[in-house]
Amino acid sequence: MCWLIQNYIYNPEDNKHYEGAFTQGNGYVNIRGSFEEDLDGATQNDIYWRLPANVTLEKARHSKSKWGVYVPGIYGVHPILGEEIVNLPYFLGVNLYFDSERLDMEVSDYRDFTRSLNMKNAVLERSFTWKIKGNDIEVNFKRYCSMENKNLVVQELVLNSLDKDVELRLENFIDAGITTNGYNHFTKVLLENDEALKAFVTTDTNQEVGIYSKVFVDGSDKSAIGFSSSESRIIESFNIHLKKNNRIIIKKYSIITTSIDTDYKNDIRSLLHSKAKAINNNITMDSHEKLWQERWNISDINIVGDKEVQLATRFSIYHLLRAVNDSDKVAIDAKAYAGEAYFGHYFWDTEIYLLPFYIYTQPQHAKNLLMYRYNTLKGAKENAKRYGYEGARYPWEACISGWEQCSNWQYSDLEIHVTADIVYGMWNYYEATGDEEFLLNEMLEIMVETARYWVSRVDVVDCKYRLLGVMGPDEYLPFTNDNSFTNYMVKFSLNKTLEVLEIAKKNNLDKFNELKVTNEEIDLIRKVSSELVFLLDDKSKFIHQCEGFEKFLEVDFEKVWIDKSKPFGNFISQEKNYRSKALKQADVVALLYLFKNDFDEDIKKNCIKYYEKLTTHDSSLSYIFHSLVYSDIKDSKSAYEFLHKSLGIDLYGKGSAEGIHIANCGGIWQGIVMGLCGLGLSSNNKELILNPNLPEHIKKIEFKIYLKRRLYKVTVEKQQVDIKEITK
Amino acid sequence: MCWLIQNYIYNPEDNKHYEGAFTQGNGYVNIRGSFEEDLDGATQNDIYWRLPANVTLEKARHSKSKWGVYVPGIYGVHPILGEEIVNLPYFLGVNLYFDSERLDMEVSDYRDFTRSLNMKNAVLERSFTWKIKGNDIEVNFKRYCSMENKNLVVQELVLNSLDKDVELRLENFIDAGITTNGYNHFTKVLLENDEALKAFVTTDTNQEVGIYSKVFVDGSDKSAIGFSSSESRIIESFNIHLKKNNRIIIKKYSIITTSIDTDYKNDIRSLLHSKAKAINNNITMDSHEKLWQERWNISDINIVGDKEVQLATRFSIYHLLRAVNDSDKVAIDAKAYAGEAYFGHYFWDTEIYLLPFYIYTQPQHAKNLLMYRYNTLKGAKENAKRYGYEGARYPWEACISGWEQCSNWQYSDLEIHVTADIVYGMWNYYEATGDEEFLLNEMLEIMVETARYWVSRVDVVDCKYRLLGVMGPDEYLPFTNDNSFTNYMVKFSLNKTLEVLEIAKKNNLDKFNELKVTNEEIDLIRKVSSELVFLLDDKSKFIHQCEGFEKFLEVDFEKVWIDKSKPFGNFISQEKNYRSKALKQADVVALLYLFKNDFDEDIKKNCIKYYEKLTTHDSSLSYIFHSLVYSDIKDSKSAYEFLHKSLGIDLYGKGSAEGIHIANCGGIWQGIVMGLCGLGLSSNNKELILNPNLPEHIKKIEFKIYLKRRLYKVTVEKQQVDIKEITK
Repeated sequence: MCWLIQNYIYNPEDNKHYEGAFTQGNGYVNIRGSFEEDLDGATQNDIYWRLPANVTLEKARHSKSKWGVYVPGIYGVHPILGEEIVNLPYFLGVNLYFDSERLDMEVSDYRDFTRSLNMKNAVLERSFTWKIKGNDIEVNFKRYCSMENKNLVVQELVLNSLDKDVELRLENFIDAGITTNGYNHFTKVLLENDEALKAFVTTDTNQEVGIYSKVFVDGSDKSAIGFSSSESRIIESFNIHLKKNNRIIIKKYSIITTSIDTDYKNDIRSLLHSKAKAINNNITMDSHEKLWQERWNISDINIVGDKEVQLATRFSIYHLLRAVNDSDKVAIDAKAYAGEAYFGHYFWDTEIYLLPFYIYTQPQHAKNLLMYRYNTLKGAKENAKRYGYEGARYPWEACISGWEQCSNWQYSDLEIHVTADIVYGMWNYYEATGDEEFLLNEMLEIMVETARYWVSRVDVVDCKYRLLGVMGPDEYLPFTNDNSFTNYMVKFSLNKTLEVLEIAKKNNLDKFNELKVTNEEIDLIRKVSSELVFLLDDKSKFIHQCEGFEKFLEVDFEKVWIDKSKPFGNFISQEKNYRSKALKQADVVALLYLFKNDFDEDIKKNCIKYYEKLTTHDSSLSYIFHSLVYSDIKDSKSAYEFLHKSLGIDLYGKGSAEGIHIANCGGIWQGIVMGLCGLGLSSNNKELILNPNLPEHIKKIEFKIYLKRRLYKVTVEKQQVDIKEITK
Repeated sequence: MCWLIQNYIYNPEDNKHYEGAFTQGNGYVNIRGSFEEDLDGATQNDIYWRLPANVTLEKARHSKSKWGVYVPGIYGVHPILGEEIVNLPYFLGVNLYFDSERLDMEVSDYRDFTRSLNMKNAVLERSFTWKIKGNDIEVNFKRYCSMENKNLVVQELVLNSLDKDVELRLENFIDAGITTNGYNHFTKVLLENDEALKAFVTTDTNQEVGIYSKVFVDGSDKSAIGFSSSESRIIESFNIHLKKNNRIIIKKYSIITTSIDTDYKNDIRSLLHSKAKAINNNITMDSHEKLWQERWNISDINIVGDKEVQLATRFSIYHLLRAVNDSDKVAIDAKAYAGEAYFGHYFWDTEIYLLPFYIYTQPQHAKNLLMYRYNTLKGAKENAKRYGYEGARYPWEACISGWEQCSNWQYSDLEIHVTADIVYGMWNYYEATGDEEFLLNEMLEIMVETARYWVSRVDVVDCKYRLLGVMGPDEYLPFTNDNSFTNYMVKFSLNKTLEVLEIAKKNNLDKFNELKVTNEEIDLIRKVSSELVFLLDDKSKFIHQCEGFEKFLEVDFEKVWIDKSKPFGNFISQEKNYRSKALKQADVVALLYLFKNDFDEDIKKNCIKYYEKLTTHDSSLSYIFHSLVYSDIKDSKSAYEFLHKSLGIDLYGKGSAEGIHIANCGGIWQGIVMGLCGLGLSSNNKELILNPNLPEHIKKIEFKIYLKRRLYKVTVEKQQVDIKEITK
């Protein structure tokens, strides 16, 4: 049925991968799939300096397990890395003791270990038989982040002694001794116990978090037999009498609230207590399951003929659904709140990789993501000013404030395409939803302010408008002129701005007047958009990645890249890489997909043939755009091959250890829907069109699509396609 | 007489400047000219993160005073900035109390304040009258770092009450609560008192430092009346009975020893105690003064007709003499151990700016500085390997190990000319000293290993050897191809290597065989050295700074640089600067001076005319090379103008606050000797030649020069020059 992600052997080598892959979330809190109990040798409070190095090559520093509890919007300030997501106190803690021996996956003897994530209802489960001093005790853990009550996390533990009556001790705990990327963001920690455990922490940005955790043993809220606490951990203990073959069910309910909750009124304690009142032993997961079912009902893709692709696609959609936030003050970070790499920052991924999934299946979330950009426009304007330009310049790495958070200057200073990518994403949203209200207000404002940036950022050299000193999506060439991806994206962004300005001007809209756009300004935008250099060679039907690309050094990949299981970047110094013809990821190839109607087949074929050979795919963003372009040029074999490589990024090996490559998840959705099925819009944007290109073995693909607030069911089969509106 | 640097008003705004300018040293320990007593509001143990930012623009973080005690070779490891000089415990501490009121330059009432550095004997003195509760007390502090006993620092305090008998309390203290660039490098601090104060600290590199400090009041080593200590400070108190008009002399002797002392034998305590035995109240400064006199006798320059230039030149020579170390395991850092900016790292400054002074006046020190490079050759080889090249690649920022210490990749990765600059400096040393032993051993090894690096670093593009992705001395253009300075320096370095290899091969020297240089290797070095691109346009008589320099953006300096009292870099984003035709410092102009015999006058005139207009002189290394080229082309007015700008860098304003711009000091010496006086070597290197170009108002310049171990007195006057050998 392809709904379960499973793991049958605990192995410290890939445990962090499963923790990432099993991350749960409900649009408010996200929790890595770590064990409930402590793991020998897996300290959670290591202090070290994660430095602003080349992000691809930086080694992760923490141990075989890294707990992760993230509430997007709760952030700290790291002295080097800037605004950063904060890993909050781990409140799922449950330790089991037989005499003085603690259950520990590293140390204990056990058999029949299974853990699995049921993507359908987002429940994580683990079962095994603990063999302890001649006893066989069945242990089963379950948990979920409630989709009904977003502050609630529910856990269930079922114990059964197979051989005789035994006495166990259970410790319920909350641990606040947690660092994020080696840094302690808590300025205050308060741990309490009375009828339950409580933890209050304050971050170094003065945000507050309150956590409440209560245990019910076998249907009763019987009192703990004891409490203990250290500086960072509070514990309550329970005796568990297990009669032979008599299952005991222990339930643990936790409430997490923060000072960014909409109902927070300057008192985290009273907020926590008022929410904790909802806790009782009769909570069921019916509503939770129903809410997940509703989401799947719209966003699922049914694939007949390839179980691996089916599973991987569901896995991608699962994470897209659980990581997207209810708030429009945050977006989705590069690791989808399933780890701390990239510090919880937002990149161009949002608009280019993630947005289509939401636009076409969860449009309200798409709007939230775009409203996040609108809400950080002030920061983007300050960025532009800081760099000496007009208008708004979105940061390469964004967090809460909208100010640039990237501590590597070559990215923050040079990878300017993000500002145009945002307009591209917004335009896609508008085309699919027809949301004119948004177009003529927030979008218009962003368009005008970013156009002002571009007009001041371009240089005139030899009587041509040019963008000098730019890094395109290919981060292995940092300092180039007239990067084609960037320039084309900017031209597009300015063209669309002109279109919207025309409407706004004609209708004398308030927003238009508020923005004080002059005719001279419009003329200049027109001039820049039409005259900005774009290095398409019409004769040879070829797009140059940037000025003088052909003069960069040839790389003898066979000689240099001696172990292809590791990134190419491991085998060459950054300095040499920066002057060599080795691409980190799709650059012109990305452009060919994003503007597939603008370029003819010869250009596409020439470019992908040339650039693919030079591309290392050291970035997880690379494979899927190759798949999409191959789909477009009807090379279904190569399209499937690259799709398959994308699928593996998070699903296999250690891919998810530091979090989920969520951009790739969004890419996979596009790879199936826009790639294999060839979904697009008619030229008037009013109808869906299909131009499918299924691989031989895939018999059928079914999914649903929103267009202009109508829902359609799409079925693609070898011999026929079908688009049918669904009446809700 | 021009031997005194003086200051008549204490002002918190420029106090750090005087602390830097008044730095004392003896080739072992260097001490900033801070006050002996505490200064209100000037904390010394602030913790903060000094980040790897653009070093020109980074704001210094500490307060109106920063103590500084540095023993070069004692270093810490900063998690971000790498190996770093350590600011050691401040052992000069003396506080004076009248009742409970502490003498404090920020708070107390006083008049007739003077502090002055006598450069002749390197004694720092401060005097003033303290007006306290109706009493006038004359206070005079003196101190010096003994040139005779390098571990000894001598202080003297003379007190005289003008109006009546008074009772004062004196606190002698050592303070170990000191951070370096906001970081605490001490892992262990032990403070003791018995017959004297003692402090032992261990650095985070496990080096040890022991300090002993003893006070004699009015000729006796009378006991302290009390001791007190905190975590980081130890204090002993004395009562001082001041009879009216009866001067009391207090002497304080301190011994500082470290685990890098040549006589250290794994026991810092016994080393300290054995050295402390030398302390008694009869120490005179006769030998100290004599040793300074000997140094000045060789290195002084006498200038008739311009007192300002005379003073500034002495000031430069003073710091060159006091900062140069007795050891060949360290060099002279960018701030000459008079501050912590640049973290105590060594740059190309050593070979290009500093070395000529030592070669021609203190050749043994020149050799030590070059031996430092030889002693870090292992690190340079590891650097080359890390970057993927053969041979040895010297670090842009060097410290103890020879590994790269620069944490800004654009400098460390791209500013590769340093490796050739080192050979250039060594060659100058060889030409002036005739030290063939060094040439055919250490130098040959460095030459061969660095040649191996260059041969693997060059790229062949269009059948030409080129150096791509390079930053030249002009750090405002980071990523250029075929920077002329670099390429010419490399060609020179390889040519000289070939010359020496020929001798070594012909004589079948051990070192030659040890290095296993093959004929093929020699051929390749020859090929690269002769074919490496050099962008001299013979027709237009012009050297291009790098490939396509003319295509970088024009800057409207008038419009952008609105306040020329601040660096240009403050008014433009790094990103825009990096694509603009604005030079941080001399680049081609530096080349014209360093190879003045290789280029004709037309080239020099064309280039300086073109580049000077584009040069911001944001680097302190820039002015003096302009002065030197102007001297060379006989434009004495411009030469003097730029020399004058150089003089002001450390002498006026706040120039020395973070330390001394020692490269500029070496540059000033060259500006006088090689510039105004036009000193050079005959083509066979056997004779000094003079081609002077004195400004109108300078009547005479006299100095001494070593050539091939002979000492010459040089006199340059308007109408005549004289070179006379001195019989020692």
